[in-house]
Amino acid sequence: MKANRPIGIFDSGVGGLTVLREIEKILPHEDIIYFGDTARVPYGNKSKATVIKFSAESIHFLLGKRAKMVIVACNTSSSLALDYLTNNFSVPVIGVIEAGVKRALKATKGKKIGVIGTRSTIQSKSYEKAIHRKDRTVKVLSRACPLFVPLAEEGILSGEIVEEVIKMYLSTMKAKGIDAIILGCTHYPLLKRTIALYLKNTHIVDSAKEVALHAKEILRRYYLFNRNKKKGKVEFYVTDEPQGFLKLAKLFLKRQIPHPKVLHV
Amino acid sequence: MKANRPIGIFDSGVGGLTVLREIEKILPHEDIIYFGDTARVPYGNKSKATVIKFSAESIHFLLGKRAKMVIVACNTSSSLALDYLTNNFSVPVIGVIEAGVKRALKATKGKKIGVIGTRSTIQSKSYEKAIHRKDRTVKVLSRACPLFVPLAEEGILSGEIVEEVIKMYLSTMKAKGIDAIILGCTHYPLLKRTIALYLKNTHIVDSAKEVALHAKEILRRYYLFNRNKKKGKVEFYVTDEPQGFLKLAKLFLKRQIPHPKVLHV
Repeated sequence: MKANRPIGIFDSGVGGLTVLREIEKILPHEDIIYFGDTARVPYGNKSKATVIKFSAESIHFLLGKRAKMVIVACNTSSSLALDYLTNNFSVPVIGVIEAGVKRALKATKGKKIGVIGTRSTIQSKSYEKAIHRKDRTVKVLSRACPLFVPLAEEGILSGEIVEEVIKMYLSTMKAKGIDAIILGCTHYPLLKRTIALYLKNTHIVDSAKEVALHAKEILRRYYLFNRNKKKGKVEFYVTDEPQGFLKLAKLFLKRQIPHPKVLHV
Repeated sequence: MKANRPIGIFDSGVGGLTVLREIEKILPHEDIIYFGDTARVPYGNKSKATVIKFSAESIHFLLGKRAKMVIVACNTSSSLALDYLTNNFSVPVIGVIEAGVKRALKATKGKKIGVIGTRSTIQSKSYEKAIHRKDRTVKVLSRACPLFVPLAEEGILSGEIVEEVIKMYLSTMKAKGIDAIILGCTHYPLLKRTIALYLKNTHIVDSAKEVALHAKEILRRYYLFNRNKKKGKVEFYVTDEPQGFLKLAKLFLKRQIPHPKVLHV
């Protein structure tokens, strides 16, 4: 029965675990297969053609595992590859852009939204386009923040260095008076508290929760809820040896996870 | 004639251009094929098995282009994969570790050498082992510096942020009195001046020049000097679309390069 198949979550690496955490909360009976392309991470500085190719390969794997739906947790892949993926696979494929945009539009009063992400995400203008499809009058201020991922992965989440880097990236949009900001990369929620200290009175949108609500809506629409009453199982697959993934997973999920299986790409 | 074939330079991305620059100076009549695995860069946090696999694939490509010798410019690959590569390919394959070590041992008076590199390079202890094979009495202080690559690629080469990051990574080895430091990653020479300001009276070893001298010695030993009297040609190959590579190449080489060809991995 199709409804009892797992949900696939795809990310370039470990960051998509923030989405996994929200899916587990909102859809506790669903089985989940998490796939992290850790051998080829990060995607954030890579071209559209390469991101499409790597993403499609990853989703082929999840479909081989009989996923009934795929969530693209990676913002770069959602920005560059989602059109291709939704057009070329038969199961529902959802990304993180629309969900974050929906929340930010609700939050902004002054119609000025900041968007931060990897270089490829920002260059794609995916957030800007999605915002303007819903409201042309909103001003969007974007900035690529390539140092945020390594800072998060180094566990440097507060203190002088990260404060200076935040100021360097965000001072312009702060001065221009944004009142909502989209964290357009799965790593950035780790820096949320320090960003909030700098951007006072700004609504900070973390797409993970929003995309989980969106996933629930899709399951409802296609009659795909898992009818099992027990807690869902989670399996992990990665493309590099799992030591690095396991270490970072603790930072993201604040719990131990079972040993991932390794697939060689 | 084998001697007239090109030299292959392999790097995970753009950083190996620092080695290319030195080879061009020291061996101006040699043809060169530069291969940067930009679709899968960086290697610095990846496992030994994955780095061996990606490196071997890249070298197969260079051998297909009839390289008479291969220089592994990437420190992570030199640290994790060189044994495998020298044992499994029939042309000479040289890495950057031995060359840097030789120079540092000449430079140190107090027999205290600092080594910095990516997480995988430092974890492999490749520099430490190479130093101790030559002199067991030298004290080696190592530190992984994962923020240096994104800082260099962002062009943040001086100023408060990079000074604070340098202090965070290097204060311990400075306090312990190193008098030579090996920049064990091809990106770090871009930060050389700011590192030198912090580590006064410390000899800074950039392996690029040393490995070029080593390459010359190998060509001499195997009678492989190109006898052409004209300037050698350089061809570039990358695995991702070339825009990002071209932009960074200017930062590393301080000149324009011809458009690289793209190979899809």
